[in-house]
Amino acid sequence: MIKICIIGFGNVGRHLASAFERSPLVDLVQVFSRSGNAAPFPFSDRVISKFDDLKDADLYIVAVSDAAVESVSETLPFSGKLVVHTSGSLPMEILDGRNRKGVFYPLQTFSKNKDIDFSPVPICLESEIAADYEILEKVASALSGDIYKISFEQRRALHVSAVFASNFTNHMYKLASDICAQHDMPFAILKPLIAETAKKIETLSPEEAQTGPAIRDDQNTIDAHLELLSDIHQKNLYQIITSSIQNERKKL
Amino acid sequence: MIKICIIGFGNVGRHLASAFERSPLVDLVQVFSRSGNAAPFPFSDRVISKFDDLKDADLYIVAVSDAAVESVSETLPFSGKLVVHTSGSLPMEILDGRNRKGVFYPLQTFSKNKDIDFSPVPICLESEIAADYEILEKVASALSGDIYKISFEQRRALHVSAVFASNFTNHMYKLASDICAQHDMPFAILKPLIAETAKKIETLSPEEAQTGPAIRDDQNTIDAHLELLSDIHQKNLYQIITSSIQNERKKL
Repeated sequence: MIKICIIGFGNVGRHLASAFERSPLVDLVQVFSRSGNAAPFPFSDRVISKFDDLKDADLYIVAVSDAAVESVSETLPFSGKLVVHTSGSLPMEILDGRNRKGVFYPLQTFSKNKDIDFSPVPICLESEIAADYEILEKVASALSGDIYKISFEQRRALHVSAVFASNFTNHMYKLASDICAQHDMPFAILKPLIAETAKKIETLSPEEAQTGPAIRDDQNTIDAHLELLSDIHQKNLYQIITSSIQNERKKL
Repeated sequence: MIKICIIGFGNVGRHLASAFERSPLVDLVQVFSRSGNAAPFPFSDRVISKFDDLKDADLYIVAVSDAAVESVSETLPFSGKLVVHTSGSLPMEILDGRNRKGVFYPLQTFSKNKDIDFSPVPICLESEIAADYEILEKVASALSGDIYKISFEQRRALHVSAVFASNFTNHMYKLASDICAQHDMPFAILKPLIAETAKKIETLSPEEAQTGPAIRDDQNTIDAHLELLSDIHQKNLYQIITSSIQNERKKL
């Protein structure tokens, strides 16, 4: 069984640790948490807070903030081991050269209070050495059925693309929620619409799924919406995103 | 059983007609389609293309484009009947005064090639006469468990809010899809992320669910993303939406 240590206990670290702990295919040896505290987790007996306490493993997954990946990899008290980071933005090369390098990037949005089912989550892998790719592939397949060999250039682009698909999308929800609140309506009224909008692109392309006044070039409705939005900030975003959809329309 | 005629055979008209046809609680008397053609639908024997052929019913639902609602309602060859439109943007008063007026606004995104389960869809109602509200409520409850009494001001705001939550969200998917395509990755790689992003707001508020470089104020990642985006249009949108998220951050 492949032995794994997770280094870092932020959103990615704790979700990965929980998922590996549930998998019968890997052995979660330790989880490094700076505070040493992981009380409510089933692996809390294996949480350490000193790098010198790290035990032998086949794979060390550094799941810390981008800014800390380099220094953490330099601090690891061993060499010749397989060490990967989980960042969408950093090159594999940022990892310290004493160990074998790789990347284990799960493409998902992780929130503290929301459990993740990893089985559909794409896991994007990269390794310095071909033999290490096989280890990463085995570990990834313990979590997910969707594994991709992705270059750094692709991974960086994927990360930007994920910002649009997830972070910016969630901000659209936030803006919609604000407008509802300003008119005494509960955000809940929008939830079926949000669910269906996401569901549509399981079977339609985003081009096919586009609806609304911008794609119909319905200037009367657009003008009425702009008039209704009193917040200059909301109005500005409405205008810019509408233009962006209308640009798409011209390409059709 | 309440007798209904649907006037209009665009996305909303055909989805409503299909849903009413399936419901044992209402009687779909006729569907008016300008072309007269509804061949593959189970109600195709009741499709008409002349207003003079409209039979007696308890409710006439005018599901045509906003621009056509007024003239269609003026063309109806009867008076004293309950006639509603399905628009998120138009006042009830736009309907011709010979008939009793109301609004039947299902808050959902309708696409030609994607069936809709109406049961969770919020249906927003308004009527001139209190007794007519009861008819609308009965008809709405034949489709959905989620019925709202919504004023025109609220409905207009809800429509704008739906543009953000659905149309603009779908455009975020489109931009993400473009970036993937530009780097030889399939759009499918983003689908689990999109599904999870929508699923998160079932249990978290959009504020709680927000992740990504903008809300973390991670300027290094933001700069790297802007550098990677070669399309000036994508870059511009990235910058504006990032600033908008950062504005939210300052309010926290």
